[in-house]
Amino acid sequence: MMPLNLHEYEAAARERLTPTAYDYFAGGAGDEVTLRANRASFDRLALRPRVLVDVSRRSMKCDVLGADAAMPILVAPMAFQRLAHADGELAVARAAGAAHTVMVLSSLATTPMEEVVVAARPSRVWFQLYVFKDRGATRALVRRAELAGCTALVVTVDAPFLGRRERDVRNRFSLPDGVHISNLAGFGKDELPREAEGSGLAAYFEKQLDVAFTWKDLAWLRETTRLPVVVKGVLRADDARDAVAAGCQGIVVSNHGGRQLDGAVAAIDALPEVVAAVGGKVQVYLDGGIRRGTDVLKALALGANATLLGRPVLWGLAADGEDGAKRAIDLLAAELDLAMALCGCRSLAEIRRDLVVRAP
Amino acid sequence: MMPLNLHEYEAAARERLTPTAYDYFAGGAGDEVTLRANRASFDRLALRPRVLVDVSRRSMKCDVLGADAAMPILVAPMAFQRLAHADGELAVARAAGAAHTVMVLSSLATTPMEEVVVAARPSRVWFQLYVFKDRGATRALVRRAELAGCTALVVTVDAPFLGRRERDVRNRFSLPDGVHISNLAGFGKDELPREAEGSGLAAYFEKQLDVAFTWKDLAWLRETTRLPVVVKGVLRADDARDAVAAGCQGIVVSNHGGRQLDGAVAAIDALPEVVAAVGGKVQVYLDGGIRRGTDVLKALALGANATLLGRPVLWGLAADGEDGAKRAIDLLAAELDLAMALCGCRSLAEIRRDLVVRAP
Amino acid sequence: MMPLNLHEYEAAARERLTPTAYDYFAGGAGDEVTLRANRASFDRLALRPRVLVDVSRRSMKCDVLGADAAMPILVAPMAFQRLAHADGELAVARAAGAAHTVMVLSSLATTPMEEVVVAARPSRVWFQLYVFKDRGATRALVRRAELAGCTALVVTVDAPFLGRRERDVRNRFSLPDGVHISNLAGFGKDELPREAEGSGLAAYFEKQLDVAFTWKDLAWLRETTRLPVVVKGVLRADDARDAVAAGCQGIVVSNHGGRQLDGAVAAIDALPEVVAAVGGKVQVYLDGGIRRGTDVLKALALGANATLLGRPVLWGLAADGEDGAKRAIDLLAAELDLAMALCGCRSLAEIRRDLVVRAP
Amino acid sequence: MMPLNLHEYEAAARERLTPTAYDYFAGGAGDEVTLRANRASFDRLALRPRVLVDVSRRSMKCDVLGADAAMPILVAPMAFQRLAHADGELAVARAAGAAHTVMVLSSLATTPMEEVVVAARPSRVWFQLYVFKDRGATRALVRRAELAGCTALVVTVDAPFLGRRERDVRNRFSLPDGVHISNLAGFGKDELPREAEGSGLAAYFEKQLDVAFTWKDLAWLRETTRLPVVVKGVLRADDARDAVAAGCQGIVVSNHGGRQLDGAVAAIDALPEVVAAVGGKVQVYLDGGIRRGTDVLKALALGANATLLGRPVLWGLAADGEDGAKRAIDLLAAELDLAMALCGCRSLAEIRRDLVVRAP
Repeated sequence: MMPLNLHEYEAAARERLTPTAYDYFAGGAGDEVTLRANRASFDRLALRPRVLVDVSRRSMKCDVLGADAAMPILVAPMAFQRLAHADGELAVARAAGAAHTVMVLSSLATTPMEEVVVAARPSRVWFQLYVFKDRGATRALVRRAELAGCTALVVTVDAPFLGRRERDVRNRFSLPDGVHISNLAGFGKDELPREAEGSGLAAYFEKQLDVAFTWKDLAWLRETTRLPVVVKGVLRADDARDAVAAGCQGIVVSNHGGRQLDGAVAAIDALPEVVAAVGGKVQVYLDGGIRRGTDVLKALALGANATLLGRPVLWGLAADGEDGAKRAIDLLAAELDLAMALCGCRSLAEIRRDLVVRAP
Repeated sequence: MMPLNLHEYEAAARERLTPTAYDYFAGGAGDEVTLRANRASFDRLALRPRVLVDVSRRSMKCDVLGADAAMPILVAPMAFQRLAHADGELAVARAAGAAHTVMVLSSLATTPMEEVVVAARPSRVWFQLYVFKDRGATRALVRRAELAGCTALVVTVDAPFLGRRERDVRNRFSLPDGVHISNLAGFGKDELPREAEGSGLAAYFEKQLDVAFTWKDLAWLRETTRLPVVVKGVLRADDARDAVAAGCQGIVVSNHGGRQLDGAVAAIDALPEVVAAVGGKVQVYLDGGIRRGTDVLKALALGANATLLGRPVLWGLAADGEDGAKRAIDLLAAELDLAMALCGCRSLAEIRRDLVVRAP
Repeated sequence: MMPLNLHEYEAAARERLTPTAYDYFAGGAGDEVTLRANRASFDRLALRPRVLVDVSRRSMKCDVLGADAAMPILVAPMAFQRLAHADGELAVARAAGAAHTVMVLSSLATTPMEEVVVAARPSRVWFQLYVFKDRGATRALVRRAELAGCTALVVTVDAPFLGRRERDVRNRFSLPDGVHISNLAGFGKDELPREAEGSGLAAYFEKQLDVAFTWKDLAWLRETTRLPVVVKGVLRADDARDAVAAGCQGIVVSNHGGRQLDGAVAAIDALPEVVAAVGGKVQVYLDGGIRRGTDVLKALALGANATLLGRPVLWGLAADGEDGAKRAIDLLAAELDLAMALCGCRSLAEIRRDLVVRAP
Repeated sequence: MMPLNLHEYEAAARERLTPTAYDYFAGGAGDEVTLRANRASFDRLALRPRVLVDVSRRSMKCDVLGADAAMPILVAPMAFQRLAHADGELAVARAAGAAHTVMVLSSLATTPMEEVVVAARPSRVWFQLYVFKDRGATRALVRRAELAGCTALVVTVDAPFLGRRERDVRNRFSLPDGVHISNLAGFGKDELPREAEGSGLAAYFEKQLDVAFTWKDLAWLRETTRLPVVVKGVLRADDARDAVAAGCQGIVVSNHGGRQLDGAVAAIDALPEVVAAVGGKVQVYLDGGIRRGTDVLKALALGANATLLGRPVLWGLAADGEDGAKRAIDLLAAELDLAMALCGCRSLAEIRRDLVVRAP
């Protein structure tokens, strides 16, 4: 039966995926308190719809970093998409392209970025960057992203180490034969260790990632590239102000989908302080727990410029390849469109703070 | 076994109804968060009863739009009542008539309105209006309601599009043979599409309803008719003030029983701001989640002039036709009468704001 | 296995009682929201124990209406105790006597009050009074209570009508052969109707009780008797002030164990405003939801002079007659004694407001 | 399968322990409300991690009473460790020694303290003291602890009587043959009564412990010894100030793991007022509900100098002897290290109050 919403896509995907792959995508860190909080906090917000507005013409058009997207729903960076489906990142890129929205491509993609950029056309691809200990490799990766036509760098800042994802530790998570971290092959960083006692990805992070990276180094990165830089993983006003001061053009409020620090504040709960702190100087996006069009609406009402959709895209991908990924995005977009109409909002500009109230 | 309360009527009805009809009546939009919130928010309010009042004489008599009703419990507009029982709207009208309370008849009734008005005597019938793209049809419908003897128009303002009711999408909800939208037959609008991929009702709304209807158009509607106009579906103070400014005589605080915008604020939680905003200039009613006499009492204490009872009337109808519908209304009225007695309230005027407190 | 706490006594009792009797004692009105709230509200209060106090000598001695009780735990008035055990009120009276605490005897007792007063020695018996339409009968009942040696009147003010206790309606609750409302035999009021469609007790109340009784009539009652008058069923500051003005010597903050108005505020939540309102002019007791010694402690910390223990005494009675009733009281008293010791309170006077805080 | 976290160690331990031993270690007093609250209150606190800090060098080094510990996680005093494993306190001491952290040895240990002190090297052992009615025995015990090389006294102040632990009452908890309260053998206090009707430990407490012990007596104790004195079991600001005034060097905020006064405030909820009250004059530790590294982090953010880990050490001990105990400590330390890294905290000094916020 065709899934009617993103929850049903997860159920459909679970039937197709190996338990290890499902756990990798679905799981969170520790007791998964933050994973659940990301969802529960959306449900604690209630909407106050306006009525009797002429909603015959509506637009979800969205400015992201100065360019148009068809909707305030970008595809979040997610690693190892070929674990979900043989077509992996190419299928997701085509889905994002068809939806006219941005795909954020993970450093840990299993497909060469040049192919992804082509597949995503006419949509743009942003490149998510993990900063490696090997600065040369980092620099080369950025350079390659520029040449490939990526239009922004999304630097993940909440993962100097990998979160303790116990499902992956138990499953001794690694990559099956034939699936590689494609864009790091040139640096001998394209395999996850299989001999690790626990999660191969955790071992990879510990060996490869630069845990000494600071705001000062971010300035170096900004000089290295002509691309706009977005930092992903900010949950506090002071860090948000530091990001602005460091010259970033965007901030993703995110707890990494509950996969890094268990107990971290829910993304939607952290959003207002970040929005207030940046005062409109840079764009603010939200990532974590988006499952319904009304979740997007709530995030926008609280000041986000756009949201990032993560796991559900992979559930669509796993369930039905490119079509599934596309349909997952379309379902959410249709829900948002309907929710806007029912709230009397004809454009993102009409989504105001007073649309949302804390449920008692 | 004879149902003792409205919950038991739902259980009895469920046994009689087809799954598709039960789902249509029982369901809400999306994750049904608002459907549940409508109930849960009543339970978060506690009553502070007064004692040692002479309650030997009590009255629930209620002024609605300048006329008397025997109780502050009106029958909410609900579509397709012949799906619940062959006697449909006629049975409900007779039940409302016997209870001396107002029946609000849906635009999507499956019985000609003239017959319903006769059946409801001596009670009055208010006509719930959906505004169609076809203004001629809309005007004719209003005119017909006037001629039939309806005494007010209740204009639904929260449904430019139908909410995403996933049960109906899954069931491909439509009307069975022999059940028609009786009062729209003259305009070729008496059938729900059956070929629709999802909900036939959603397709019908998308094709027929006027999504461009605004407060300005409401002024046009008011000039079109000599009947008082009530707007149904207001959840905010600003919209309530707009309704007063537009010359409406009443407002139904409602989220359409959780069937339109999932995530919308619970009706009882939105009531106080609407009551405060209108400052007594027009009547305010509440709709959504009423299952116990104490729910009615809480709504009145928070400032409602009356409440509308929806699904439970249909559960009574499905379970036992006119008798069931009547008994459902009577059960609730008896509960309200007892609750008033136990709170020391002999009339609606003695139900005051301080009767209710938020439970800790 | 010997019950270790009052919860276990309920389980033991349930095995012994007929379902109808168990339902009568255990049930509440409506959806039993208030029944549950009485318990849940205790759990929302946390204790802040003091340490390093010499607690080698402790006393729970309590002044109630100017006389001593061994503990701030009185036996609440409960009807029809012979439904729980053949020894009924006599067993409970002996248990209260042995515990050196007050028994409040119900108007609806199934044993002559003179026998109960003797059985309770050396403890005192207070007589709970329902005010009957038949003022002569009411006056005679009061006179008989005085002659029998009862030392106070506890006038129930929250029951002009019986609450809608749906378990009893379903069970068509009435009294079995051989069980009578003993003290009303002289007035032909000693039987519950059996022909009633629903609860025989509800029918009895409707026929017999005076729904017109007011504070003014309470003044009449006070003149009728030389006994101190306590009103039971007050949940608001204004009613509490009225009780003081009417010359009452005590107030029982109570929602009748959740058996009258479902949705009424939890007893412990209503206590502080009543305590504040009476300002020490009369005694304040609490009734509803007491199951643990710490519940008594919390009530005292919030200003109650004593508490009334209801259903658990009957669970003890049903499980093991007089011994069970005694042991239920003793268990609670031992829990209170231990809780006081662990909180550094050597006497009731040392139980202060700051011992309790709302749990987050 | 090797446990991955402390929850899994509990499951593993439960399979190895007799039900009576498991109940003794796992259970709490009364309805175990406080036992659950200790955990639930941690989950109500959310973390606000800082990003882009160079976390390549981190230290959990901790000053406790002027000496170094490798981590802010001490081993809480727990009785009867030989019930968990034949190696009992020796295994735990070796585990604490290997982890370079303090072990707090219970007065009710089942191993001579001299052996424990040796086994714990190079770590220090603090001696937990119950004050006995027999002051001579108490003094001798303190003297022996000094001679054995214990470096602090931890005086338990929340247990003049044992809490009502109903599991133990039901199980008639006592010690099996061959397990003794080793350090009290010289005073004939090394056995729990087996003839007790309920808990043998409760009977032991009632017979042996000094319920008259006050702050004044604590001054006597301080003069008796040259060791620093820590009081364990304080939950209020006033008691904390009394502890400072009495010359204590440390305070353990604790409700005895929910084993004494059920309904007592959760330890983590009581922490802030104690920290504020002592104003840095003495050290403050927290005990109760620690199961995750983030729990330790939250306690430190709220002002604790260190935490005490209780039951999980015994779960490790029961599951796998010294290795299990060691691994339980190591798992928690690794979680704390990771949590600090993900929060941008390189040392305990960088863990600040604003790291924690109440979750909505």
